[in-house]
Amino acid sequence: MSGASTPSNDQPQQTWSQRFEGSLHPAIEVFNASIGFDIQLIEYDLTGSQAHAKMLAKQGIISESEATQLVDGLAQIRAEHRAGTFHPTIADEDVHFAVENRLTEICGAIGKKLHTGRSRNDQVGTDTRLYLRDQIGQIRVALRAYQAALVSHAEQHVETLIPGYTHLQRAQPISLAHHLLAYTEMAERDWQRLGDVLKRVNISPLGAGALAGTTFPIDRHYSAELLGFEDVYRNSLDAVSDRDFAVEFLAAASLIMAHLSRISEEVIFWASQEFSFVKLTDACATGSSIMPQKKNPDVPELVRGKVGRVYGHLQAMLTVIKGLPLAYNKDFQEDKEGLFDAVKTVNACLEAMTILFNEGLEFKPQRLAEAVAEDFSNATDVADYLATKGVPFREAYNLVGKVVRTSLAANKLLKDLTIEEWQALHPAFEPDIYEAIAPRQVVAARNSFGGTGFEQVREALQIVKSRLN
Amino acid sequence: MSGASTPSNDQPQQTWSQRFEGSLHPAIEVFNASIGFDIQLIEYDLTGSQAHAKMLAKQGIISESEATQLVDGLAQIRAEHRAGTFHPTIADEDVHFAVENRLTEICGAIGKKLHTGRSRNDQVGTDTRLYLRDQIGQIRVALRAYQAALVSHAEQHVETLIPGYTHLQRAQPISLAHHLLAYTEMAERDWQRLGDVLKRVNISPLGAGALAGTTFPIDRHYSAELLGFEDVYRNSLDAVSDRDFAVEFLAAASLIMAHLSRISEEVIFWASQEFSFVKLTDACATGSSIMPQKKNPDVPELVRGKVGRVYGHLQAMLTVIKGLPLAYNKDFQEDKEGLFDAVKTVNACLEAMTILFNEGLEFKPQRLAEAVAEDFSNATDVADYLATKGVPFREAYNLVGKVVRTSLAANKLLKDLTIEEWQALHPAFEPDIYEAIAPRQVVAARNSFGGTGFEQVREALQIVKSRLN
Amino acid sequence: MSGASTPSNDQPQQTWSQRFEGSLHPAIEVFNASIGFDIQLIEYDLTGSQAHAKMLAKQGIISESEATQLVDGLAQIRAEHRAGTFHPTIADEDVHFAVENRLTEICGAIGKKLHTGRSRNDQVGTDTRLYLRDQIGQIRVALRAYQAALVSHAEQHVETLIPGYTHLQRAQPISLAHHLLAYTEMAERDWQRLGDVLKRVNISPLGAGALAGTTFPIDRHYSAELLGFEDVYRNSLDAVSDRDFAVEFLAAASLIMAHLSRISEEVIFWASQEFSFVKLTDACATGSSIMPQKKNPDVPELVRGKVGRVYGHLQAMLTVIKGLPLAYNKDFQEDKEGLFDAVKTVNACLEAMTILFNEGLEFKPQRLAEAVAEDFSNATDVADYLATKGVPFREAYNLVGKVVRTSLAANKLLKDLTIEEWQALHPAFEPDIYEAIAPRQVVAARNSFGGTGFEQVREALQIVKSRLN
Amino acid sequence: MSGASTPSNDQPQQTWSQRFEGSLHPAIEVFNASIGFDIQLIEYDLTGSQAHAKMLAKQGIISESEATQLVDGLAQIRAEHRAGTFHPTIADEDVHFAVENRLTEICGAIGKKLHTGRSRNDQVGTDTRLYLRDQIGQIRVALRAYQAALVSHAEQHVETLIPGYTHLQRAQPISLAHHLLAYTEMAERDWQRLGDVLKRVNISPLGAGALAGTTFPIDRHYSAELLGFEDVYRNSLDAVSDRDFAVEFLAAASLIMAHLSRISEEVIFWASQEFSFVKLTDACATGSSIMPQKKNPDVPELVRGKVGRVYGHLQAMLTVIKGLPLAYNKDFQEDKEGLFDAVKTVNACLEAMTILFNEGLEFKPQRLAEAVAEDFSNATDVADYLATKGVPFREAYNLVGKVVRTSLAANKLLKDLTIEEWQALHPAFEPDIYEAIAPRQVVAARNSFGGTGFEQVREALQIVKSRLN
Repeated sequence: MSGASTPSNDQPQQTWSQRFEGSLHPAIEVFNASIGFDIQLIEYDLTGSQAHAKMLAKQGIISESEATQLVDGLAQIRAEHRAGTFHPTIADEDVHFAVENRLTEICGAIGKKLHTGRSRNDQVGTDTRLYLRDQIGQIRVALRAYQAALVSHAEQHVETLIPGYTHLQRAQPISLAHHLLAYTEMAERDWQRLGDVLKRVNISPLGAGALAGTTFPIDRHYSAELLGFEDVYRNSLDAVSDRDFAVEFLAAASLIMAHLSRISEEVIFWASQEFSFVKLTDACATGSSIMPQKKNPDVPELVRGKVGRVYGHLQAMLTVIKGLPLAYNKDFQEDKEGLFDAVKTVNACLEAMTILFNEGLEFKPQRLAEAVAEDFSNATDVADYLATKGVPFREAYNLVGKVVRTSLAANKLLKDLTIEEWQALHPAFEPDIYEAIAPRQVVAARNSFGGTGFEQVREALQIVKSRLN
Repeated sequence: MSGASTPSNDQPQQTWSQRFEGSLHPAIEVFNASIGFDIQLIEYDLTGSQAHAKMLAKQGIISESEATQLVDGLAQIRAEHRAGTFHPTIADEDVHFAVENRLTEICGAIGKKLHTGRSRNDQVGTDTRLYLRDQIGQIRVALRAYQAALVSHAEQHVETLIPGYTHLQRAQPISLAHHLLAYTEMAERDWQRLGDVLKRVNISPLGAGALAGTTFPIDRHYSAELLGFEDVYRNSLDAVSDRDFAVEFLAAASLIMAHLSRISEEVIFWASQEFSFVKLTDACATGSSIMPQKKNPDVPELVRGKVGRVYGHLQAMLTVIKGLPLAYNKDFQEDKEGLFDAVKTVNACLEAMTILFNEGLEFKPQRLAEAVAEDFSNATDVADYLATKGVPFREAYNLVGKVVRTSLAANKLLKDLTIEEWQALHPAFEPDIYEAIAPRQVVAARNSFGGTGFEQVREALQIVKSRLN
Repeated sequence: MSGASTPSNDQPQQTWSQRFEGSLHPAIEVFNASIGFDIQLIEYDLTGSQAHAKMLAKQGIISESEATQLVDGLAQIRAEHRAGTFHPTIADEDVHFAVENRLTEICGAIGKKLHTGRSRNDQVGTDTRLYLRDQIGQIRVALRAYQAALVSHAEQHVETLIPGYTHLQRAQPISLAHHLLAYTEMAERDWQRLGDVLKRVNISPLGAGALAGTTFPIDRHYSAELLGFEDVYRNSLDAVSDRDFAVEFLAAASLIMAHLSRISEEVIFWASQEFSFVKLTDACATGSSIMPQKKNPDVPELVRGKVGRVYGHLQAMLTVIKGLPLAYNKDFQEDKEGLFDAVKTVNACLEAMTILFNEGLEFKPQRLAEAVAEDFSNATDVADYLATKGVPFREAYNLVGKVVRTSLAANKLLKDLTIEEWQALHPAFEPDIYEAIAPRQVVAARNSFGGTGFEQVREALQIVKSRLN
Repeated sequence: MSGASTPSNDQPQQTWSQRFEGSLHPAIEVFNASIGFDIQLIEYDLTGSQAHAKMLAKQGIISESEATQLVDGLAQIRAEHRAGTFHPTIADEDVHFAVENRLTEICGAIGKKLHTGRSRNDQVGTDTRLYLRDQIGQIRVALRAYQAALVSHAEQHVETLIPGYTHLQRAQPISLAHHLLAYTEMAERDWQRLGDVLKRVNISPLGAGALAGTTFPIDRHYSAELLGFEDVYRNSLDAVSDRDFAVEFLAAASLIMAHLSRISEEVIFWASQEFSFVKLTDACATGSSIMPQKKNPDVPELVRGKVGRVYGHLQAMLTVIKGLPLAYNKDFQEDKEGLFDAVKTVNACLEAMTILFNEGLEFKPQRLAEAVAEDFSNATDVADYLATKGVPFREAYNLVGKVVRTSLAANKLLKDLTIEEWQALHPAFEPDIYEAIAPRQVVAARNSFGGTGFEQVREALQIVKSRLN
């Protein structure tokens, strides 16, 4: 076996076309080529190849000196790429050939030895996983920044009240911080979920070959270790044809976007004249030349719109893998563009929402205070009040309906009933009823674990903050 | 009303930011900008604007001389664009501002008058429809070319037999032309369906304004006529917020791709060693350096894979429009990239499949002839034979099972039974049984309308060809 | 060929299992069976079979007397089904066998002759198309009823003003009728689109056989005519494997649901305390026992939620057909449940929204009148006013910003500026400025075709009403 | 606070309609009701309620005796349900009311106390999570059974060779066991992934109330512990509006189905006459009455088709949650039917595939042996052979192409070349070349980790088996 370096890959190589009599139709050459987008993988391709070269040398498949030349040549390509002087063309087909071709220019025939014991199929899988692992890391950082932006408002607004809604109907006043912390919880699940996704992204297919492994005495665990992979695929066919990790990431990305679409919807409401719960600053809103009072919430609208493309990429990837036989099929080339766009979209949307909460909006406490005072969302607490005064529950409960109907008939809110009116409804009412149904008290009283009571909210805030550090 | 040209649009303009005290966050400026992709609409934007300018002059809203300057200025931008000297930047936000800014450089203050009586909202809707109308025309041409490529094989293979499958099990031999013509029928539905889509694409929103119409005495029917629209939106709110046409196109595009995925799957089978029904030429296949006999069907694989992205774009657009209130929302900006990519994908896949059938594959008639001879797919015809000999149906029918079992036990095909064996099964069998169950006869006999009988196939072929001219 | 009635189908029959040595695993029998849902097709199956029997007699393939027995036997099954006495079991596998088995009980051996010249594959295709044609007709009727419900409000509210929004920011006041008519336009497109879908649903596959046509001298055009089909599939392979019509319907259904989700979103806003544009009646809202003032907009919420399942069914069907080879595959059995559920969902949602607009909500004109008076959405009209007074456009236009800023500084709306304040801003202002910027005038002035001007709206209303009759 | 049991829920109750003057439209009552499908949750609802009652007693909110009555009453309903004597109606709206109503019949007024300190919103969330936790457990068991079925074949076929494919072209012979183990690896990821999903399913929302928590001194951790939840939602708004767990499950289910669709596709190929790699038994295949040799692979076809509906349910759920504001919205009612159907589908498909591999198919070793002998997939090994003989790599490598071309020209396979022909190509060839290129040796040589070498495969098989126990 010694130093033989027969490429075992099944994928096209520069050389395959020499054996063909005809040449590829030019339009088909363009159709097949992936260099237009997989160039984004170049840094990962170089890193992966360097590790592969080192492993080959460690196993004695190539010499140490050959490995050094290859590693240095790859480093040179990286420098050229970063300097903007590396320009692959369509004729290079994909980033892997582009690198290999350049490497052979730099190193001569030794460049060809790099491909010993691996194939395009495991190589592209390695690159994509390294890329995604990196991006997941970045997205998790972006999730933390987004949470921090929400927390900075939550900290200021533990005792700011905002109507709590179900069915978009006001149900009960709640702490604004409590409302915002619901979104940090969603982001926390996103953060954890990406951690689970990572477990199945961070597995090395390198060395699985075209489909069946290789006759060379490679050490897959060593190259995996060099590349920071946690594990190694156990089955070579699975290694080259698994795209679960992409689907799993796209599903997690879809949930991130779903969460962002929900808070976006709320910001859009809040910024409407009808709600007027927030004021948009000039940092994130656009206006109209002749309606200077108008500020359009472009950021949350665009984020809400972008949920579509991520859902679409998920469905696209699922469609691609439906019914594909083992092992590698060209269809898999379609795994990249959607993935790249999803990564870009999630990062951009998290950043935009972070900026929006950091610089782009201010809550309007006075308007919020008015809002929570102007409805009957404290009716429940009248029954609770009576219960504490010893009125049997059923009686107390029936009375609430009567109280509300009386108030509505008088065109008054509960707080506007006179003490005489209260007492006419039931003698147990005393002046402390006003305190009992004050929104602040109503909120404070819901002090069950995870509830909106201020004590609970403060505790929750501490926990959320501790996660950020 | 006279010559006043107050822009009635609600969308941002260069000038809106002057009224804002703060400035847009640089990352948000990038996030909001669409110039990176909507530059693809520039030709349609220029055309639409020229028609709008002419209408304004016809209605006396601007002078003829002003209109001439605007039309000429727009023509100059078109020339610059085609010459590659027009380079918008992120600061231009979108293609509409980019054009307007350049127009004002060329024409001076008159450039601003172009926007009288319209808004970004109806303008972008107009551009997108003009673009899509054009692209649908191109796709329909591409569908015709694809059909022609299939027909060129069908014409040669009316009498070439191929196994017909259900459940991927051989069921009955059929004419290869008949098989191919099933795909021209699908393409024909695609062609017609795009015609129906076009009815709802080719309607003018121009002049609907930001959402409510305009106070200027514009003539929407005139600008629509200049632009070749068949109709004019009747409701301004609907005009600026309708994206049905994009969804409808994406659904039609999804079906085109579904059809292409089906024929792709078949070509991939056919090119396998197991089927060996076609030989791939070097024009569309790639190989492997050390397995010179191997030719990978990259084109149909990649086409099959690309069905995913078009399905995904459809789902993305449906997601975008879910639950959006009237009228324009920034979310709609997300209607373009998926649409552009779907158009590009469908065009590229139709072209690739056309090349594949024109230059990339050859059927192997000898192998096909063997295939249809080596199974029991002619069993049905034994019963038919007996029926024509006067054997009661039920008897004939029961006998078929017995014939097949006898043959299987003898490890023979029906054609290999001796006349004695036939007659031992039933005295009505005579030597003409061999003719009756010959695959060619079996195919010819299925001469019901739309069936695989050669007469039917020839007629169908004529009809398909007549559509192509 | 005469009276021979060999079934040419490839699909399983009661009898096939007799030739198998082993028997189907019981769990697999359940897994394969479709009788649990395709029983919904029974009426269409009976109708299709009756037409087929008549055609067979007309062609002399069976006798007139046999046809009469078959037609009568099928009529008896229909009567039994309607009486609730027809109970197929899992052992019947599907509705077609269930009917055939019962028919043979009723008619004896003649029952078997019904299957001459057709197959399960074309039979199930026929049934599904008849079903869908029928349902499309019902949905189109439901669309008309929904439009009528919208129109009944529009007629009352031509001159009721409501804020018009872009980006959910108030942009310009509009006629409430104009707003509602945007939705009748969407429904009109839905109605027309279904008409186009119908063209490709209403084509007969009957007689295409299992895949290749039949040796019997059937007349497919005659049975198609009896069944009201507009056309006949030209290619038998296509006929049994085409599911485009289902996809096309699901895409059209998705758009109906998208439109309903949009108006649902608006009703949910309008019913919120913040908007308070509508009052929900007790017919369509549910409440809370202890918050009597609260009415939950369940109907629009549930409709908005149900958009998901129809989008899902579309994606499901597209997934099913991806990459399927010709001709029939068992996968196609998955075309039904999603289709049935989409039909049911669309019908139920249209009905619910019709009830909602007929009985479930009332607009609150006073609140709407306040809403349009309380913002700066009339700023544009100040510039128009100045222009009519001969102020050059650019000057007029620049002044508007100043006017708004002055008003904001004074915490006033435009209507609240004194004439002195107006004249201090520009001497051209005269007392008629108040009329010019009154919301009613602002709306009336947008009288371009399709705009919100009352004249336009009245005309549009007439057209919409004429469609309903 | 004591014993007061004011329901704090916001969701409709039996009693809410008493405060409404009008009554719900009958069609809307049907439209809103979920009892038709959420009855599937009844066992979980009863379990959840029993735990809630016990917690209320522990906290002194109700008495021990009341708790006992409630727990016993719920047990009685469970018994009635299992006996088939519990029949809710549409008037019950949903399973929760149905149970509550029956409980009040059984226990009298105390029945109402059960709802103290919780709401429909947290209750339905609890039920759904308990259901899904249970179902995930069952699916994981089904995954193990499916793996075991694959393993039983793998154990028999470690040394059975089968062509390995890329692009559906034969690439290299591999061990059949290796091929099957690729699918056990996919199932292993599915199993692990469900474990991760479970972490986010198994969190208790109970006690979050309608949206804001409750004023009662409940102990959410205690009820969670009784119900086996691993954790408790930290934020009440999030608790009632989170549907991530459903999306996450549907994504995991989609991947299971994608994997099953892949192996299904392969079985369908393998069962075709062209491949003939497997023989279908009568347990899972259906036939055709007049083509007794034909066996249709219904099971894998139907499984492949069913991937569509699970993908569709995923997309549906993602669509539902897009853009929903906090907290509970009626749209969430749409989370159930798709989830239930996905659970049912995944379970049924895993069971069907398990039966298929246990009883429904047999591999045909002789045919497989022929298949691997009849192509050039051993060409790579010629180069390896020469390398071991000391021929420089580049020379060895170039020679392979020549060898193959020579063989093709002579219409021979490599194994058919005479030793003279080999030596004419290169003097280094010796008689041991025949052994070196024998498929068995070719497979054995790919002994890198995870490769198809028999040693590797045996080791992998041990690991897979150890997971099953």
